[in-house]
Amino acid sequence: MTTLAHLDTPAALIDLRQMQANIERMQARMNRLGVAFRPHVKTSKCTPVARAQQAAGAKGITVSTLKEANAFFADGFNDILYAVGMVPAKLPQALALRRQGCQLKIITDSEASSAAIVAFGREHGEVFEVWLEIDSDGHRSGLKPDEPALLTVARTLHHGGMRLGGVMTHAGSSYELNTPEALTAMAAQESAACVRAAERLRTSGLPCPVVSIGSTPTALAADRLDGVTEVRAGVYVFFDLVMHNIGVCTASEIALGAPTTEIGHQADKGWAIVDAGWMAMSRDRGTQKQQQDFGYGQVCDTAGHLLPGYTLSSANQEHGIVSRQGRPEADIATRFPVGTQLRILPNHACATGAQYPHYQALAPDGTLARWPRLHGW
Amino acid sequence: MTTLAHLDTPAALIDLRQMQANIERMQARMNRLGVAFRPHVKTSKCTPVARAQQAAGAKGITVSTLKEANAFFADGFNDILYAVGMVPAKLPQALALRRQGCQLKIITDSEASSAAIVAFGREHGEVFEVWLEIDSDGHRSGLKPDEPALLTVARTLHHGGMRLGGVMTHAGSSYELNTPEALTAMAAQESAACVRAAERLRTSGLPCPVVSIGSTPTALAADRLDGVTEVRAGVYVFFDLVMHNIGVCTASEIALGAPTTEIGHQADKGWAIVDAGWMAMSRDRGTQKQQQDFGYGQVCDTAGHLLPGYTLSSANQEHGIVSRQGRPEADIATRFPVGTQLRILPNHACATGAQYPHYQALAPDGTLARWPRLHGW
Repeated sequence: MTTLAHLDTPAALIDLRQMQANIERMQARMNRLGVAFRPHVKTSKCTPVARAQQAAGAKGITVSTLKEANAFFADGFNDILYAVGMVPAKLPQALALRRQGCQLKIITDSEASSAAIVAFGREHGEVFEVWLEIDSDGHRSGLKPDEPALLTVARTLHHGGMRLGGVMTHAGSSYELNTPEALTAMAAQESAACVRAAERLRTSGLPCPVVSIGSTPTALAADRLDGVTEVRAGVYVFFDLVMHNIGVCTASEIALGAPTTEIGHQADKGWAIVDAGWMAMSRDRGTQKQQQDFGYGQVCDTAGHLLPGYTLSSANQEHGIVSRQGRPEADIATRFPVGTQLRILPNHACATGAQYPHYQALAPDGTLARWPRLHGW
Repeated sequence: MTTLAHLDTPAALIDLRQMQANIERMQARMNRLGVAFRPHVKTSKCTPVARAQQAAGAKGITVSTLKEANAFFADGFNDILYAVGMVPAKLPQALALRRQGCQLKIITDSEASSAAIVAFGREHGEVFEVWLEIDSDGHRSGLKPDEPALLTVARTLHHGGMRLGGVMTHAGSSYELNTPEALTAMAAQESAACVRAAERLRTSGLPCPVVSIGSTPTALAADRLDGVTEVRAGVYVFFDLVMHNIGVCTASEIALGAPTTEIGHQADKGWAIVDAGWMAMSRDRGTQKQQQDFGYGQVCDTAGHLLPGYTLSSANQEHGIVSRQGRPEADIATRFPVGTQLRILPNHACATGAQYPHYQALAPDGTLARWPRLHGW
C-alpha cells in the first residue's frame, strides 16, 4: 500500500477529513437556509467526491461538460444540470442522455438557441427540460431579469412544447470581493435578480418551479435566500488560496494539495527547486491581483502544516522554485535538503485538479486511495 | 469519419501540414549547423508527433517526466534524456527502464543527488549515464560552468563508477527576449557556458562526450554552435503566441488551435461567448507581459485564418469571451451567430495541449485522426 512518504510526486492529494468538513459546513448552511443544494462537480470531476456530497444531503449535481454528464450518469447520478449554454451541435448528446433515462436539464439565454432546442426536440419527439440563464452581475452570460427577451425566450420554449424548468444564475463576480459585507450584498443581488426573473415568468403565466443561484463565496455569505429553491457551488469542496483571499476559508481548510520533492537548490538565491512546476499546479495565478499573492502556491510540510512565508514563487513545466517571501533563506539547502517532500496548496483547486488523471485520497488513518478524475471533453 | 465541421468542441487541433513545416524548418537548421537534434516531447506528449520528428532526422528524445520516458520507450524510442534533476525516490523507476534496455540518461546538478545516484547504482550494479546540468542564464537549476562544484560533482559520479555522458543546459530566459540580436546573443551565451563546462571537465581528465543546449528561441537564433554536439527544443513543433511575440514564428505558423463553438452573446458589450474557456486553453497568460497581449488566445475562423484584432479576452472554466480589441463589435451576434465554429490559437502550446486527452490531427486532405496524448505523472 502506498503511503504519503512513498508517494510518487507530484500528485494531487485530497485530505479527506478536511474535505468532509467542508462538505458538511456547506450542507448545514443550506439546510439552515431552507434550500436544496446541487454541488458543481466540475471542481473534482470525481465520483467518490460527488458521492460524499450526496451522502451529506446534496440533491442532484451540476456539470460543466456533457462528458461529465455521461460519466456521472453512468455512475448512478440521475438529476444533472448542464450549466453551459446549449448549442445545436450538442443536442444529439443531450438527447442520448435523456433517452437513457437521465433527468438532464439544459440551459439557454438566447432566442437562437431556444428555437434550435424546440426544433430539435420536436423533430425527435423529446421534451427537453430547459432552464433560463440569468445575468445577475454582468460578468458573463445570461438574460437580464428585466429585459423583454426573457419572456420571448421563455415563450418560445414553453409554446414550443419544451419544459420550462426554472431560472439559474451564477454571480461569478463574487470572486473579485473580499469583505463579508460585499459578499453578503452580492449574494442578495444574485438572489434578487434570479427571483425577479422567476416572478416575471410566473406573472406572465409561464412555469418556473426552480430558482437556482450560486457560487462558493455567495453561498457562504448569503444571510437569507427568500424565493430561492436551490444553490449551486463547486470549489468549496476543496477550497483554495483564491477562496482564502476572498475570506470564505482559512488556508488550513484547503483540502487539496500537491506533494512535491526537492530536486536541487540555487543556494545563493535562496531557491529550493522542486518537481512541482506549472504542470503540477496549473498556470492559474488567481491570487496575483488579490490582497496576498501566493505565486503558484503556499508551501506546507509533508504533513500539510503551513510554512508561512514560503511560496512556490516561480514555475516552469516540471520545475518549481520554492523561496521565502521578502528575505531569502540564508541556508535553503539545509532547510529543505534534496529529497525532502513538501506539499503545495493551490491557487485554484479546479485548475490544479485538472492537471491530474487521478487524486490520491488521504484517509484520517493515513491510508491512500487512488480516485480517478475525468479529463477533457 | 469526423470532419472539422462536425468536431465536438472544444478540441486540440493539429494542422499537420504546418506541423511538418515547423519540424522541417528546425531539422534543416540543425543539419546546417552540424549538430544532432533531440526534440523535447513534453510539448506534444504524443507518439505520432515524435515519430514525425524522428522521421525528419531527430536523434533521440528529451522528456520531462518518467511517465513520458516509459510511454515513449514502450512505443519504440530508446535514446531518452530525462531532463529534470534526479532525486533518490525516482531512481528505482530509472533503474527499471534501463533494465528493460532503455538508453535512459539522467541529469544532476548537486553533490547530494550525485552521491545518491552512485550509492543506488552500486547497490544495484547499474552504471547510470548521467549528464551534468549547467546554469547558463541564472533562470533555474544547474551548476555554473566555473564553480568548483562542477568538478566535485563530476568526480563523484565518475569515480563512483557512473558514466559521465556530458553536459546540458537550457537558456529559458530566452523567453523574455524579442529581438533577433538579443536572441542570437543569448544563444551564444548558452553555448559558451555549456562548452566552457565541458572544457573544464575534459581538462581535468573527465569524460564529456555530449554538449547539449537548447530552447526553441535560441535554437532558431544561433548563428554558430562551435563545440556543441546536440540541440534540444520542444515548442517549435507547434509554435504559439508567446513564440510569435518573441519573434521566432508568425501567427500563421502556429500548428495547434482549439476549435470552439459560439454559445451566446452579450450584444451590448460586444461579447460573443464560446465553449472554450480556460479549461480548453489552459490558464497560461504568457503573452500578458509581452509586447502584444492576446488574452487567452487569438481568434481564427473555422479554417484557421486569422481574424486580426479578435481575441479570447476573458475565460471562465468552460466559457470564453471573444471580443474585438479596442472598439467593441457593434453587432457581434450577426458577426458570429450561435453555432458558429471558430479556432483559438494558444498562448502556450505545451500548456494548452495538456488540457486534452487526445489531439485531433488534421491532414492536408481534410481528414481527422485522433492521436492520444499523455496526461499526468
